[in-house]
Amino acid sequence: MNTEPPSKPTEVLRGIAGSPGVAIGKVVVFGKSRAPCPRRTIGPGEIDTEIARFEEAVARAQRDLREMSQRLTERSAEASILEAYVLMTGDPVLAEAVRHQIQKEKRAAEWAVAEASDVIAKRLAALDDPYLSERSHDVLFIGDRILRAFGTTVPEQQHVRLEGPSIVVAHDLSPADTAAMINQPVVGFVTEVGTRTSHTAIMARALEIPAVVGVTDALARISSGDLVVVDGLRGSVLVRPQPRELEEARARGERHTALSRELSISRDREAATQDGVRVTLRANVELPAEAILARDHGAEGIGLYRTEFLYIDRSLPPTEDQQFEIFRAVVETMRPMPVTLRTFDIGGDKFISSLKLPPEMNPMLGLRAVRLALSQPEVFLEHLRAMVRASAYGEVKIMIPMIASLSELRQVRVLLEKAIEQVKARGLPCADEIPLGIMVEVPAAAVLVDLFAQEASFMSLGTNDLVQYTLAVDRTSRSLAYLASSFDPAILRLIRSVVRAGEGWACPVSICGAMASDPLAAVLLVGLGMRDFSMEAAAIPEIKEALRRVTLVEAEAVAREALRFGTSDEVEHCVAEAFAPRLYDLLTGER
Amino acid sequence: MNTEPPSKPTEVLRGIAGSPGVAIGKVVVFGKSRAPCPRRTIGPGEIDTEIARFEEAVARAQRDLREMSQRLTERSAEASILEAYVLMTGDPVLAEAVRHQIQKEKRAAEWAVAEASDVIAKRLAALDDPYLSERSHDVLFIGDRILRAFGTTVPEQQHVRLEGPSIVVAHDLSPADTAAMINQPVVGFVTEVGTRTSHTAIMARALEIPAVVGVTDALARISSGDLVVVDGLRGSVLVRPQPRELEEARARGERHTALSRELSISRDREAATQDGVRVTLRANVELPAEAILARDHGAEGIGLYRTEFLYIDRSLPPTEDQQFEIFRAVVETMRPMPVTLRTFDIGGDKFISSLKLPPEMNPMLGLRAVRLALSQPEVFLEHLRAMVRASAYGEVKIMIPMIASLSELRQVRVLLEKAIEQVKARGLPCADEIPLGIMVEVPAAAVLVDLFAQEASFMSLGTNDLVQYTLAVDRTSRSLAYLASSFDPAILRLIRSVVRAGEGWACPVSICGAMASDPLAAVLLVGLGMRDFSMEAAAIPEIKEALRRVTLVEAEAVAREALRFGTSDEVEHCVAEAFAPRLYDLLTGER
Repeated sequence: MNTEPPSKPTEVLRGIAGSPGVAIGKVVVFGKSRAPCPRRTIGPGEIDTEIARFEEAVARAQRDLREMSQRLTERSAEASILEAYVLMTGDPVLAEAVRHQIQKEKRAAEWAVAEASDVIAKRLAALDDPYLSERSHDVLFIGDRILRAFGTTVPEQQHVRLEGPSIVVAHDLSPADTAAMINQPVVGFVTEVGTRTSHTAIMARALEIPAVVGVTDALARISSGDLVVVDGLRGSVLVRPQPRELEEARARGERHTALSRELSISRDREAATQDGVRVTLRANVELPAEAILARDHGAEGIGLYRTEFLYIDRSLPPTEDQQFEIFRAVVETMRPMPVTLRTFDIGGDKFISSLKLPPEMNPMLGLRAVRLALSQPEVFLEHLRAMVRASAYGEVKIMIPMIASLSELRQVRVLLEKAIEQVKARGLPCADEIPLGIMVEVPAAAVLVDLFAQEASFMSLGTNDLVQYTLAVDRTSRSLAYLASSFDPAILRLIRSVVRAGEGWACPVSICGAMASDPLAAVLLVGLGMRDFSMEAAAIPEIKEALRRVTLVEAEAVAREALRFGTSDEVEHCVAEAFAPRLYDLLTGER
Repeated sequence: MNTEPPSKPTEVLRGIAGSPGVAIGKVVVFGKSRAPCPRRTIGPGEIDTEIARFEEAVARAQRDLREMSQRLTERSAEASILEAYVLMTGDPVLAEAVRHQIQKEKRAAEWAVAEASDVIAKRLAALDDPYLSERSHDVLFIGDRILRAFGTTVPEQQHVRLEGPSIVVAHDLSPADTAAMINQPVVGFVTEVGTRTSHTAIMARALEIPAVVGVTDALARISSGDLVVVDGLRGSVLVRPQPRELEEARARGERHTALSRELSISRDREAATQDGVRVTLRANVELPAEAILARDHGAEGIGLYRTEFLYIDRSLPPTEDQQFEIFRAVVETMRPMPVTLRTFDIGGDKFISSLKLPPEMNPMLGLRAVRLALSQPEVFLEHLRAMVRASAYGEVKIMIPMIASLSELRQVRVLLEKAIEQVKARGLPCADEIPLGIMVEVPAAAVLVDLFAQEASFMSLGTNDLVQYTLAVDRTSRSLAYLASSFDPAILRLIRSVVRAGEGWACPVSICGAMASDPLAAVLLVGLGMRDFSMEAAAIPEIKEALRRVTLVEAEAVAREALRFGTSDEVEHCVAEAFAPRLYDLLTGER
């Protein structure tokens, strides 16, 4: 390792903390390895042949990915992400687009795959939702896997040969890229794209390798051979650090490793406060593979399964069967634990382009989620039938997003009953009872929560949107982030009244917003009476540990005190004063 | 009047009810009369001359308008609108733009005026705020008046000669156009542009002439000589009506006239319920002329003076002196009645273009109103100083829009104290006490209203935004209008808790949202404990009459019942069942 005085001063690059920990090593820049593709047009007689070739390539790509995942049995989390890619490789959205390219554009299968995956990826990247635009990388990766499977393309496989502990720096990394490095001494990742929910980040966390993602100009600032510190706790990369910085980084890395070791023990313990009050921790999930990850992290079910991705960027909604297969996969993965399927939360601009919904001035206040669902009852009925059918394969609950009025809940109930009838009329199995619950994320629902508690089977607080609407602050606005605090006294009061209404009317209440995965906020929530949390799977061990360090009595006392304050700063200060010292390691990621 | 069977079938055109009543008559199409302007460029030596010529033209245009208004002393409302134009003709925004055209673009004064007014009008028209885009017509009108005042242009004055009761149909009508028709038998107006807040509508209401505005295709569908019915109650125009339709229209017109007569008597009575509970009715106002209109309609002060227009479409904010002059004019007009000046409620996209604020995804949830003010403390301090100085000339209160947290109120208070100090340090007079209040329009403020009631001098419910945020529905969205009801039970609960907090902490509460001017809602609000209303001036006589027909005991009983319902439909039905029969004429505009 190079510890001699560097020739240039340290450069600090900011990114997003993708996977915790601190890594030190020499950089290997990892290039793109997109397979080239022949651009051949076909005659009308070749259409069927090309479609068959495409289908064979898909099957082969899936087989390859499965084999790759089986070789990695010891790295269960990574394997499960590769399993997700198997599923995505058979994605009907992509298949539909490829068939269109072959039939209408008269392109050979390879060209059709390259074009279709490019177009879908670009459209996804253009969306304003960070979670969805992230998916564009997956689509490109899938396209690439299929292209390779044709056998007609010559992949420029990059053979990485690493000497000594290395930091891989790349524009983007696919799981297959990562898999290729598994037996090599990779100690850290830096990518230019990506967010905390991107697969690079998810995999790095699963592999317990520090990663910083979203470092916009990494390739311009870092060269192969540079010594860097990847600080996955603070989301920064130190290029050519000074010896003192190196020393400090090494010490922080060791403190984090100590913490991780401790958390991995805690993982198998029960989720409860120090004085033995049981708390349920579930996972927020989108892809089937994340369900496996959730189980691995000790989640007691899925508290929020997002179904938006099914609908994005297609000319027609997915068929009932396509949806059913995906729901069933998730439900079976989690069985016997429950899965809460949330009906689609999409807005006009992200939906079925053929409908030509007008653009909106304020999409967050527009025709989204249940509003859109009720305006398209046939599309929504298919969605509900797919969920109803999945209920035969495990414990399914259905949750409605963006509920603002009782009438909406009542209308959805009528449609759900119709969907159940239709499924039964076809002789298909389904559960005897499917609980229908709501997200409490529109202020009106929180204000009328006693009425909703009497009609909903359960309620889940969506604090991200609740904060956004209650404080009238766009959650993506950086300049107003100071206002949009989940410690705002108004939010605390609303949460408390939701919890009370749930107790009063025996309606189970949970929370699935980002607040649940913040150790300080989680303790406060327990003090406010919350006993059911759903969060990103990777946060579960931390939150479990945080809860084990506090007693309910303390948490309740602090919650009572917090409720007396008038500003979010005062509330946060009050909670931090009480709990930050003993949660210091969980808050900073260092023992 | 033509009552013989028409040759073509009746055509019904929809628009906006601009001024109530029903008029029947033959159409006279009124063309545009924009003065043509010579396009002459100037040398550098001519700049001062041209600026001087512009200033003389402004002075002349103001004199002309003042004379025109003096000739109309009996029509006080119309005269006061012409007075507003006098003020606007001297508008520093326009002057600045004209000077720019002369100095930088080297254009002669006439061309500069034509260009500057066109540019400003176009930018205003492009804004998404109906109230502000409406102002574009005023700017064009002002530009035209100044152009005429040069004496170098040959105005194509349209000499209208009406024979018999006539309906004037035009793309748009300026007050001067209307003034030219005053001694002619005009019985109704139809314009293609305009809203309820456009001057055409305000003037028509002042003149008590039925008007339908915003009839997009009026000139294409109606020709001079057509017999039409202008239904200013329903916002429709019947072209070439059948005899039966004519008969029906005539009867409705007579019923409306009877109602108006009665209301004009009621105007001088005290605002109180049947059982003598006093209610205060004030006006929402933007232009000085509307203040005069407010007084004429019996308003007991201005409950909401909007200051946004001062800031729109300028490269620099207005100077303190410019603002002060305008505030003083309004305050003096209303003296001794109070005027509540609301600090600017503008968003990034409508403000000082030189600041280059980034565009926002959801402007309604963005950097607007007090948030913007606090991010520009120097600009805000000037605004506050202008208000503080105006307080020496009458009773001034200052109100802050979009308050979401106590910290914002506290920060504004610090700035206001600083502004007062600065004004005093300059030796300028101001009131001993200037109450500082807040708008309750962000849900967080309503949820924490007990805390705000302890710190604010008064609170005013802005129900339009409160509904928008509490139900998470963009108020301009047509497809979601069904959700955005001020009768929503969540809104009722929030209003009730605001009223209670006001009573509990002796903090005066008022309402200035559109809800206050709906007779049914107003009665419900009285039942909920509201005693202070602010609304469009023209609605005051109706609301006064509505309140006189109900007792507080009844209103309270209905409010109690309404609070038990879970949906807006049930609430509205409950209130309508109790009061609609006796308010029928006020709700329909017919006796």
